[in-house]
Amino acid sequence: MRSHIEPIARLIGAFQKLPGVGQKTAQRYALKVVNMSDSDVQDFAQRLLDVKRQVKYCSVCGNFTDQDPCEICKTRDRSIICVVKDAKDVLSIERVRDYKGVYHVLHGVLNPMEGVGPNDIRIKELVQRVSQDEVKEVIVATNPDVEGEATAMYIAKLLKPLGVKVTRIAQGISIGSDLEYADEVTLGRALEDRKEL
Amino acid sequence: MRSHIEPIARLIGAFQKLPGVGQKTAQRYALKVVNMSDSDVQDFAQRLLDVKRQVKYCSVCGNFTDQDPCEICKTRDRSIICVVKDAKDVLSIERVRDYKGVYHVLHGVLNPMEGVGPNDIRIKELVQRVSQDEVKEVIVATNPDVEGEATAMYIAKLLKPLGVKVTRIAQGISIGSDLEYADEVTLGRALEDRKEL
Repeated sequence: MRSHIEPIARLIGAFQKLPGVGQKTAQRYALKVVNMSDSDVQDFAQRLLDVKRQVKYCSVCGNFTDQDPCEICKTRDRSIICVVKDAKDVLSIERVRDYKGVYHVLHGVLNPMEGVGPNDIRIKELVQRVSQDEVKEVIVATNPDVEGEATAMYIAKLLKPLGVKVTRIAQGISIGSDLEYADEVTLGRALEDRKEL
Repeated sequence: MRSHIEPIARLIGAFQKLPGVGQKTAQRYALKVVNMSDSDVQDFAQRLLDVKRQVKYCSVCGNFTDQDPCEICKTRDRSIICVVKDAKDVLSIERVRDYKGVYHVLHGVLNPMEGVGPNDIRIKELVQRVSQDEVKEVIVATNPDVEGEATAMYIAKLLKPLGVKVTRIAQGISIGSDLEYADEVTLGRALEDRKEL
C-alpha cells in the first residue's frame, strides 16, 4: 500500500524506521501529519533535530543527557549505583520515585550467542566507578531473563572482591497479577524466595 | 514516566500527537530517534516539512496531492467515480490495483448525531462533477456502517435523477468494520460484486 504521492510515501518510509511501526501504522501517522497545522509540523521537525543535537551520553553513567555529567549523577546519592541494560530502564525505575541513587547503563547485556562479551558493554567503566568512588551498594537491575541473569552473575563476581555489596532486584509474581497466569519459572522463584511475615 | 531530559520530553510530547500513540510508545520512538544517525534524523525532519509544504487537496477529487489536479484525476478514466469517506480509503482501494477510475473524497460521512449534514461534506462537489463530466458510474465505497450506508443512500437518491448509474461496493466486508483494515482480496471482491442502488 504505497502512496502515489511522493512526499507522503517518503514520510511513510521515515515513520517505518520507528520500532514496531509497519506500513499501515506509518500511513496513519503520515496522513495525520498532513492534517496537522503548519506550526505543529514545524515544531515536530524541530524537536527531532533538537534531540539529535542536544542529547548525548553522560560520561559517568552512560544515560542520555543534555549536560555532562547528567542531572542524576550531579545531584543524587552516588554511593548506590543501579545497573540497567539500557536508557529506557532508567525511565522505568525513575517512575517508582523511591530510588535516590545513581545509575550505570550497560548499553546491552552479555550474550555469547550473539557475540556480545564483557568488552562490548560498559562493564569496565562500572568497575572503574566502583573502585574510584565511595560506592556502598550496586543493585543489578538487568532483566530477569537468561542474558540478564548471566550479566548479573558476572558483575557480582567482578565487584565483590572490591568489597562492595552487590544486590539483585527481587523476582516473583508481579503485584496485582493472578497466580493462575504466572508461568512456572516465575512461580518457582517466588516460592523459593519466600519471606517470613 | 516523563524523561527528565527536556529535549527528549518535548519529542515524546510531539509523538503523542500521532493517532493511537501513548506515553510508552512515544517514549520508545523518542529513544529510537536518539540512537538514529544524524542524517536519518535530519531526513526524517525534512520529510515532515516536505509533506506539509508540498501536499495539498486536489481541487477536483479532494484527495491529497502534490499537483493540482492530481495524478489520478489527470490520467485515469473519469467516467467512473469511486466515492470514499477520506484519503486513506483511496490508498486502500489503490492497493487492489484493479480500479481504473477516479475518486471523490467526501472528507466525512453524514452523521446527524454529531451534526454532520450534506453541506458539511463534499456532496455538492460530487453532484457538480456528475452533471458536468461524462460520468457513467458512481461507485459508493463508504464504510459498511450506519453512517456509511446512510450516506450511500443519500448520494444515490441525489444522483439517479441525473441519469448516472450509482453502485455500492458489495457487503463482502463485515458490517461494522473499517475499510482501512480490509485485506486486498476482500476489498477486490467487494469492488467486483458492486450492486446498483
